[in-house]
Amino acid sequence: MDVAARIESALTQAVGSAGQAGCPPRLAAAMRAAVFPKGARVRPRLCHAVASACGDDEPDATAAAGAAIELLHCASLVHDDLPCFDDAAIRRGRPSVHAAFGEPLAVLAGDALIVLAFQTLARAACSPRRMTQLTATVGAAVGVPHGIVAGQAWECENEIDLSHYHRSKTGALFAAATICGAAAAGADNPEAWRSLGEKIGEAYQVADDIRDAASDEEEAGKPVGKDAALGRPSAVIRYGLTGAISYLHELVADGIRTMPACANAHELKLLMEQEAKRLVPKRLAQFAA
Amino acid sequence: MDVAARIESALTQAVGSAGQAGCPPRLAAAMRAAVFPKGARVRPRLCHAVASACGDDEPDATAAAGAAIELLHCASLVHDDLPCFDDAAIRRGRPSVHAAFGEPLAVLAGDALIVLAFQTLARAACSPRRMTQLTATVGAAVGVPHGIVAGQAWECENEIDLSHYHRSKTGALFAAATICGAAAAGADNPEAWRSLGEKIGEAYQVADDIRDAASDEEEAGKPVGKDAALGRPSAVIRYGLTGAISYLHELVADGIRTMPACANAHELKLLMEQEAKRLVPKRLAQFAA
Repeated sequence: MDVAARIESALTQAVGSAGQAGCPPRLAAAMRAAVFPKGARVRPRLCHAVASACGDDEPDATAAAGAAIELLHCASLVHDDLPCFDDAAIRRGRPSVHAAFGEPLAVLAGDALIVLAFQTLARAACSPRRMTQLTATVGAAVGVPHGIVAGQAWECENEIDLSHYHRSKTGALFAAATICGAAAAGADNPEAWRSLGEKIGEAYQVADDIRDAASDEEEAGKPVGKDAALGRPSAVIRYGLTGAISYLHELVADGIRTMPACANAHELKLLMEQEAKRLVPKRLAQFAA
Repeated sequence: MDVAARIESALTQAVGSAGQAGCPPRLAAAMRAAVFPKGARVRPRLCHAVASACGDDEPDATAAAGAAIELLHCASLVHDDLPCFDDAAIRRGRPSVHAAFGEPLAVLAGDALIVLAFQTLARAACSPRRMTQLTATVGAAVGVPHGIVAGQAWECENEIDLSHYHRSKTGALFAAATICGAAAAGADNPEAWRSLGEKIGEAYQVADDIRDAASDEEEAGKPVGKDAALGRPSAVIRYGLTGAISYLHELVADGIRTMPACANAHELKLLMEQEAKRLVPKRLAQFAA
């Protein structure tokens, strides 16, 4: 089974537990809508890529970690789209969960997906020691003080700490993807993979800024131009379009330089470089350095 | 340290991680407001009582399990109070989290508390095997298909399945309290403690119905008479006030009868009987059978 199929299979199995008898059917449908049809699955792909580079000797641990991280990402999108935050009616080109199912089920589907991430880890057929390490890493990437929930909460402060904001809101779950990939494969010092995850995460954020500023709505699959309209920080506003594209490529190169030694380093490096190219919308690729 | 002090100490330590540098201060304050000042802490007290009856040979596991369950209970209150559910401005005699901090921080504080529960388990100094068991039990009690989030979601269905609704919304976290107490103490078959938890949980729900119907607002610490106003199921509406009080005592007696054999069974039985008496508001105790 290739990586994409392993990722979808793990997610289908996890979300399938919502389809069991006794689960409220509309909650189950809201959870499925939050996770399928698939997005780019960038975080689990990164997790699998690092696990593979480190030997991937407990594939069930890798699959569970990738699924847990993607479920948490999906949960954060559902809650971020709520009327009290972005009030987004469209996500991935379809109605957002609260637009389709109402606000109560959007709150609950997000909650249930957060819990499902930890249930998925607890159910994985992997050594309890690795499972504890994965749970701690994933928890730190989502919760307080520096996870994505804390990142989102910086938007509710009178004075925003920008470095904490970016590190938490974007970097934390990407860092979890690389650290969990290494931990799932039993690497000696999984924490050494944090920097790669943070750099790649920042590159994706820059790519998002580029798409928000320069793409049309059809290509992005969601409303565009929101950063400027809402006064949110953006690499394009800061560096200009060409500068932002160069910065994206620098980030990926930086990330690759910080990679710890591992069995399949060369393959992982190529994958990261391909990904950097894929991130820039086709009609803007001419601006790349 | 007595049980109440152990419970507060574990919760203070857990929520303290929100007070670290780099955490958005208003999110940290909202999380503290959701957990302190203390409520009755009935679920962690039940967890500690069962652990104690089973020998409590890994007290850190018991403390972490009790704290995790209480954090999840607090998270559910914060989300249940949101405008899209109960729209409750008052909780435990004080402003609810969304009333004090706004809706975005109430959503995020609930999310962060859910994650903190699992972080607390992952950080516990206990054997990884017990930690995996506790994580799976707590996850099942909160998530899909039968946890408290699923219970709340039954309120969003056109046709409500009452047995699943009660079992999930009230019983699940109480069942987790007894099962986790036994699992934290290394009992052979923790699942055998489910029935005690479910019966005690139902007794608390009946006590809540009694308080909602018969107490004044000052005594209950929240607005009363909501069940009848909102057409929600209630033991008082079903059995009358005297009938509901008798039913509460029967439930506790039933629960005690289902207790598996354990080292300190007699002590636990006395504690449960005391608790049943404490549950009925003083001026109604005369109606007890």
